[in-house]
Parts: sequence; C-alpha cells; structure tokens
Amino acid sequence: MDTDLSSHPASGFTRLAPQTGTGFVLPAGSTLTVVDPTGEQVSDFFCFAADDHAEWLSSGRTIDYANSIYVTTGSVLYSNRSRPLATVVEDTCGNHDFLLTPCSQQTFDLLYPEFEGAYHPSCFENLCGGFAPFGISPDAVSTTLNIFMNVWTDRTGELHIDPPTSRAGDRFALRAETDLVVGLTACSAEKSNNGRCKPVDYVVEGPTAQG
Amino acid sequence: MDTDLSSHPASGFTRLAPQTGTGFVLPAGSTLTVVDPTGEQVSDFFCFAADDHAEWLSSGRTIDYANSIYVTTGSVLYSNRSRPLATVVEDTCGNHDFLLTPCSQQTFDLLYPEFEGAYHPSCFENLCGGFAPFGISPDAVSTTLNIFMNVWTDRTGELHIDPPTSRAGDRFALRAETDLVVGLTACSAEKSNNGRCKPVDYVVEGPTAQG
Repeated sequence: MDTDLSSHPASGFTRLAPQTGTGFVLPAGSTLTVVDPTGEQVSDFFCFAADDHAEWLSSGRTIDYANSIYVTTGSVLYSNRSRPLATVVEDTCGNHDFLLTPCSQQTFDLLYPEFEGAYHPSCFENLCGGFAPFGISPDAVSTTLNIFMNVWTDRTGELHIDPPTSRAGDRFALRAETDLVVGLTACSAEKSNNGRCKPVDYVVEGPTAQG
Repeated sequence: MDTDLSSHPASGFTRLAPQTGTGFVLPAGSTLTVVDPTGEQVSDFFCFAADDHAEWLSSGRTIDYANSIYVTTGSVLYSNRSRPLATVVEDTCGNHDFLLTPCSQQTFDLLYPEFEGAYHPSCFENLCGGFAPFGISPDAVSTTLNIFMNVWTDRTGELHIDPPTSRAGDRFALRAETDLVVGLTACSAEKSNNGRCKPVDYVVEGPTAQG
C-alpha cells in the first residue's frame, strides 16, 4: 500500500484531502471515476437529478430492483422515482456499502464516545457543503453509496464494518444517465477507514456541463 | 393460521383491507399497535415529524446507530436529523425488514413480469394516498419499515424474501417520541406475503391528537 499521502494525484484527477468533500454537476453521458489512491479509504457518494432536486438517489429502490445490497459493474442506481440515475461501469474493488447514512456529528456523538461529543468533521457536513451552492437542503441527503466501504451483515442482522478491501489505485466509475448534481467525500470516520482518514481522487470525463 | 378473512378485528382495532393503506396523526406518547390478524402478512410503515415534514424516518440512521439491519423491542427509529421519532415497545414476531422501499407500480413492472405492466395496487400508492391529506409529496416517501416482512441477506449480498414468520395475532407496537404523521398499509405484493394479500389491523392508544 502506498502510504505517501503527500503524493500527487494522477494526471487529470482532483484530490479530495482527508475528511473533505465537494459538489459538482455530472452531465448525462459523462463518467465519474473515483480512485482510492492509498488503499483502505471510503468515499461517500450521493446525487440528485440536476433539473429537479426532489428526485434523489434511492438506496431502497436500487437494492430492491437488483435483489442485492451490493452494487458493482453493471448495477443501475435508481432514484426515488424508480428512474435510472447512473450505471456502474467499472469496479476493481467489489466491496461497497449502500445501507448506511453518511457519518455525521451525531454518528461520532453516538458511536465514538472517545471523542466526548467534540466537533468532528463528517461526510454529512462535507456533502451538505458540496450541495449548498445548488440550494439543496441537508434534510434531503439520504443513505449514501459508500464506495469502498466494507460492510456485511450476519444472519442475526448485525452489521460488521471491516477495513476496506480497496488497495492503492482501486477504481469505481459510474456513468450518469441524466444530468446529476453529485456530492462526493473522502470519508471522515476513522473506524470505517481502518483507523486513519486518507485522500480520495476523482475525475469526470465525457460531456461537460453546460454553462 | 386463521384464514377467515371475513372475521372482524378485535375490539378497538381498525382493519385495513388487503392492498389498502391509510394515514393519520400519531401524537407524542401514544402507541400504535399493528397486528397481523391472519398471519404471513406485511404492513409497511413510514412517518414524518408532524410539525415539519422535512424530517422523516431514516432507515440509514436507524440501522447505523443500532448496528443492525433489524429492529425489535427497544429499537429506536431515528429521523434524517438523527432525532428519535419512535421506540418499538412490543414485538411478538421478531422479523421485520428495513432495507426495501414500498412496493410500487415499478416494482411490479420490474419484478413481476407475469403482470405484463398492468396496473397493480401498491404500498407506495397507498402510502401516498394516506399522506396526501397532510400535503406530503410522494417524492418524500423513502425506505419503509416493513413490519412482518421476512428479508435476509446472504454473504454475497443477495436478498432473500421469504414468507413472513408472523402468525395470526402477532403484534408490533411503537411509541411516538414526538407528534408524527404516519402512513400504514396492508402490503400489496404477493411475493412478500406468501402468495396472498391479507388484511392488517391497527389501534392507536394513549394521548389523542389535538384538533
């Protein structure tokens, strides 16, 4: 695993520093590629239809129609209106979570007693910051696709959040099926990232957003 | 199993006919009890904070904070703002799903090819009808708590939707922690109810809604 966090992203890629996020338009037909540059790092993804923010990425519809809690190459990401928003076109890792909400201040308050309620960066805060310029309310951010997050359930229903299986350079790419507003993070939760929060790289290729 | 669908509900209970639903206010401190009168019948539940419909029942927050995909007696149902909306106070069945969205016309179009795209009653339509008098948009109905629905995942992530384990008279009750607007159904999906859609009974006890 490449642990040199000061290294530069590959040409054309943008680097999200550890515990940060961003928001941008992903035009229909373009591809978003998310890379884990150092390994064992989660990236939370959420999106809305660009022309109507009341249409949003639905984990429940996606899981239901695929009959699986996991997504990988070929998976269709559905909206709350049962419309395909995106299709996964590349996945070199194979382990991603679509059950859990983005980590929030309350996540740390409830599940990280060692922080004693102190402020902690979170994917929720970072997604809200990414969506804010588009006028999207924090209330609208639902269950995220947690790229590279290694979650499984046993027969009792208990969730197991294990270190990501992603290795340096692993890629996850999706093609937008309609114009999207996307939020993307380098996850802030230590326990989801094997104890240390690291950067995430991404690139958008294909049709560009209209001005 | 009592298969006499013409029987009357227990005293004080309201019966939802097969493939129907309703909406109502559940005041803080009151208890909603849902009964499966004949066995093997699912009831979809969703809710909003009565004073601000932008606050809604979050499967992702609930699952995350409990570290389990299942809810049972003692489970807290959280909102998208990480606030407790309700607490499960009775559960004689033990098998309920909180992963899947309510069945919708698209569910039948995609997963029931035998219906060839014809109109089919659905929990989504029935929930939307229940919420409509409160001015709540269909777009706001997210992943439901599917009471008595028997869903489990294997290690590959595949979902298994087995016949409900609920038997005639099984009960699931929750206490509202704040004033709620609730939608409740007798599920319309044949495959989730061992091939036949049956009624659901419910009662609200405790503080009554203010006029």
